[in-house]
Amino acid sequence: MDEFQLIRSYFQPDARGEGVVLGVGDDAALLQPAPGQLLVTCVDTLVAGVHFPEDAPPDAVGHKALAVNLSDLAAMGARPRWFQLALTLPEIDEAWLAAFSSGLHRLAAEQDVALVGGDTTRGPLTITVQAMGEVAPAQALRRTGARAGDRLYVTGTLGDAAQGLALWQRGVRSAGGDDPAGFLIDRLHRPTPRMAAGRAAAGLARAAIDISDGLLADLGHLLEGGEGLGAVLQADSLPLSPAYRAHCEDSLPGRAALSGGDDYELLFAVAPENEAAFQTALQHVPAGCTCIGWITEDSAITLQGDGKAQVLTRQGYQHFN
Amino acid sequence: MDEFQLIRSYFQPDARGEGVVLGVGDDAALLQPAPGQLLVTCVDTLVAGVHFPEDAPPDAVGHKALAVNLSDLAAMGARPRWFQLALTLPEIDEAWLAAFSSGLHRLAAEQDVALVGGDTTRGPLTITVQAMGEVAPAQALRRTGARAGDRLYVTGTLGDAAQGLALWQRGVRSAGGDDPAGFLIDRLHRPTPRMAAGRAAAGLARAAIDISDGLLADLGHLLEGGEGLGAVLQADSLPLSPAYRAHCEDSLPGRAALSGGDDYELLFAVAPENEAAFQTALQHVPAGCTCIGWITEDSAITLQGDGKAQVLTRQGYQHFN
Repeated sequence: MDEFQLIRSYFQPDARGEGVVLGVGDDAALLQPAPGQLLVTCVDTLVAGVHFPEDAPPDAVGHKALAVNLSDLAAMGARPRWFQLALTLPEIDEAWLAAFSSGLHRLAAEQDVALVGGDTTRGPLTITVQAMGEVAPAQALRRTGARAGDRLYVTGTLGDAAQGLALWQRGVRSAGGDDPAGFLIDRLHRPTPRMAAGRAAAGLARAAIDISDGLLADLGHLLEGGEGLGAVLQADSLPLSPAYRAHCEDSLPGRAALSGGDDYELLFAVAPENEAAFQTALQHVPAGCTCIGWITEDSAITLQGDGKAQVLTRQGYQHFN
Repeated sequence: MDEFQLIRSYFQPDARGEGVVLGVGDDAALLQPAPGQLLVTCVDTLVAGVHFPEDAPPDAVGHKALAVNLSDLAAMGARPRWFQLALTLPEIDEAWLAAFSSGLHRLAAEQDVALVGGDTTRGPLTITVQAMGEVAPAQALRRTGARAGDRLYVTGTLGDAAQGLALWQRGVRSAGGDDPAGFLIDRLHRPTPRMAAGRAAAGLARAAIDISDGLLADLGHLLEGGEGLGAVLQADSLPLSPAYRAHCEDSLPGRAALSGGDDYELLFAVAPENEAAFQTALQHVPAGCTCIGWITEDSAITLQGDGKAQVLTRQGYQHFN
């Protein structure tokens, strides 16, 4: 099998996506943007052994490579449309490729986003996905713009992926179903991009970010988008899954919920005057959306709970540290 | 230095490109496509030790990572607009980063293409660039559509990069200037994307491809775009640089000109009735453009010269072979 056969076997969907004038197979793809929309584009790389365990299930790797990019589009309020895949492989392993491409294509079909091109090269296992979406200019969500007094909302639950990683590293290999460990490991390997929440919040939230680096680190980025801003987080309001609560070894909310990465939930800053409309728009979003605190003029991030207030550092996952 | 400082130091151009509503620094970039144009998008990865020698000058690596993508846009007849950079680094080496980003930004400025986003990760040195351009729907150049009787034209000269690689592998370290070896090594490390030629040919050529995998391999791809097509190449017409002629150890045109990769010239199929208009449009293109043969109904690729005809195989560089 050479690289052209590989592309034909695994990465050439026969159904042409909407707006795809020319897809996989030429020097470049030709796409038809929707009139009046902004193009939203992002790129994220997963390196084996850094962003996913070397022994992660390949279908989960395919899922996650696309999911982390869709999460970035969701954080902008965008509708996802197309993506490209740059895949660097140490060798051709057909079983691995079949599972990887199956995980990738399943999520792509679920989210109605079309693979339109890519590149296949030989080298250490590295997966770069570049995703494109569209949003109306007035609806785009940015990291900047949050103000003191804005309410903070987060989708889904916090810290599950970090707990899933801890379990995986201890050798636990459950997946899915009713098993709490399986739930947490699925949250690590198969994050759900919060597209519906991002779209519902578009035009209603004042600022948004996805919390791929952990709540505190990404809240820090959101606060940097204003001048000398801080935040109060209410410990009892942080959304925690039953599985997380069952496995948490710290006192709740626990370090994983505050600083663990890979959750891919969305964090929103919402102006008080928009809060009712925001709540209405988000109420039927599958992931749910919870108010966890508010933005302050004091530059600290403070955790309130049990009648105490604790100042937190803005820590999170960083490469090269 | 952490990854955010790294991005601020090397990859945050202060000048905002045209059509860039929101650039580097958010979850995704927001771009304003031109009305009525198709979006042209491609992605290419360079892996250290595979696509460039580990000891290649870092400014050349930065140049080449962008150039190979711009070449794909040129092959579609597109005007380049924006690009994203996904950079995987084993460590932070500031001298390497300064030179790499300088080579990248210099070419970006020359071609008026704006860096709008990216990702920085830790891992084996791998560089993925994703580039976007625009083209009017009727002007887009594809690989498909060539027909028997079409004339074959190629920009620039052939085989220089393959000869440059052979010199580099023998330890020659010249660069640029009047030295033929330096010219050939520059052609390997600092390919010039043929943007002007691609734009001039848009709407005039019947099909186009960039010859990154070598003339024969990419001519093969162009011929696959039709039914049972072949080609005649005229040995005396193949454009060869004086430096190539001086270093060629085979009888001319030599294996490097026919099968060597990394040339990033453009190959066009031109209908006879458009040939005069094509020649006029391309006559002032800096790289030049030479007729090297024509397309036939016989599926072989034949090299004619010295009164002989030799059937060639469609070989070229392939990963995983």
